[in-house]
Amino acid sequence: MRILGIDPGSRITGYGVVDVRDGEFKFVACGVVKTDTKQSFPARLKEIYDGIDDVIQAYKPQMAAVEDIFFARNPKSALKLGQARGAIITAVMNHNVPLSEYTAKQVKQAVAGYGQAAKAQVQHMVRALLGLNAQPSEDAADALAIALCLANHLKSRNHSAAPNLRPIMSSSILDV
Amino acid sequence: MRILGIDPGSRITGYGVVDVRDGEFKFVACGVVKTDTKQSFPARLKEIYDGIDDVIQAYKPQMAAVEDIFFARNPKSALKLGQARGAIITAVMNHNVPLSEYTAKQVKQAVAGYGQAAKAQVQHMVRALLGLNAQPSEDAADALAIALCLANHLKSRNHSAAPNLRPIMSSSILDV
Repeated sequence: MRILGIDPGSRITGYGVVDVRDGEFKFVACGVVKTDTKQSFPARLKEIYDGIDDVIQAYKPQMAAVEDIFFARNPKSALKLGQARGAIITAVMNHNVPLSEYTAKQVKQAVAGYGQAAKAQVQHMVRALLGLNAQPSEDAADALAIALCLANHLKSRNHSAAPNLRPIMSSSILDV
Repeated sequence: MRILGIDPGSRITGYGVVDVRDGEFKFVACGVVKTDTKQSFPARLKEIYDGIDDVIQAYKPQMAAVEDIFFARNPKSALKLGQARGAIITAVMNHNVPLSEYTAKQVKQAVAGYGQAAKAQVQHMVRALLGLNAQPSEDAADALAIALCLANHLKSRNHSAAPNLRPIMSSSILDV
């Protein structure tokens, strides 16, 4: 099962691709879609859509997860973030990839075992869980954490006792 | 020149298609894309995307305009509206249709000659300007007003003296 995690942002959208095989997680790819802030906002939304479209075409995930957002500093930033999220979700839906949504709290809980975990802790756990020998960028790490959250939910569904994520020791090449 | 106007909404998105020929406006079509509130929000965004995609394929507009939003009641509704807008904008951009954005104030100014015009006044003017013999639904009328705003800006650009919109007397069949 190949899973795509997406961390939405109007400036930088992170993505992470993880394989789940025999209950083990394997890093596939991660990166970011950066938009050109000199462009019009519609043109930037198109960049985001195309970026996610490219990722899906390249890695052919069977499932996807995106961070659910309930909170924004103010209506203006909520509108911007919402539009980026709308572009991302339509890109995923246009490929008929089933999409799950997880709150930041759920992601932190799944990856770090604690819903209020610090960003650095989540990043550390992502690296440990996937046996990465380099630190992904913050947005890419967040996207991998979202993918791991969905992966963990799938594992929990398949096993009666829901196991916590455990770091694996194998190393992996990071294509950031 | 065929113009598509879009009034974004997560529940109901209005669309209106207007032709501009020899400085005259001609009604082509208007309607709404309604989303099934029983569906997941990603599925509803896909409905909006597909609805606008269908409208563009059916009417082949050469330009499009969407209402620009700066204000929302709260971050939560801004996020919802933003996502709908993101789905709409990517649908338009994926057809390479040039997209303009106008604030509600600009639309009211162009159609009713007054930036603070009441909704009923805008609807009345849309009907008069396009010679419609029936009242479009509120969301469809708003979308037609957005299309007329872009049409008026094009006219203003082509003529040194920017004319106000004037009602036309020809009648037109309304396919709402």
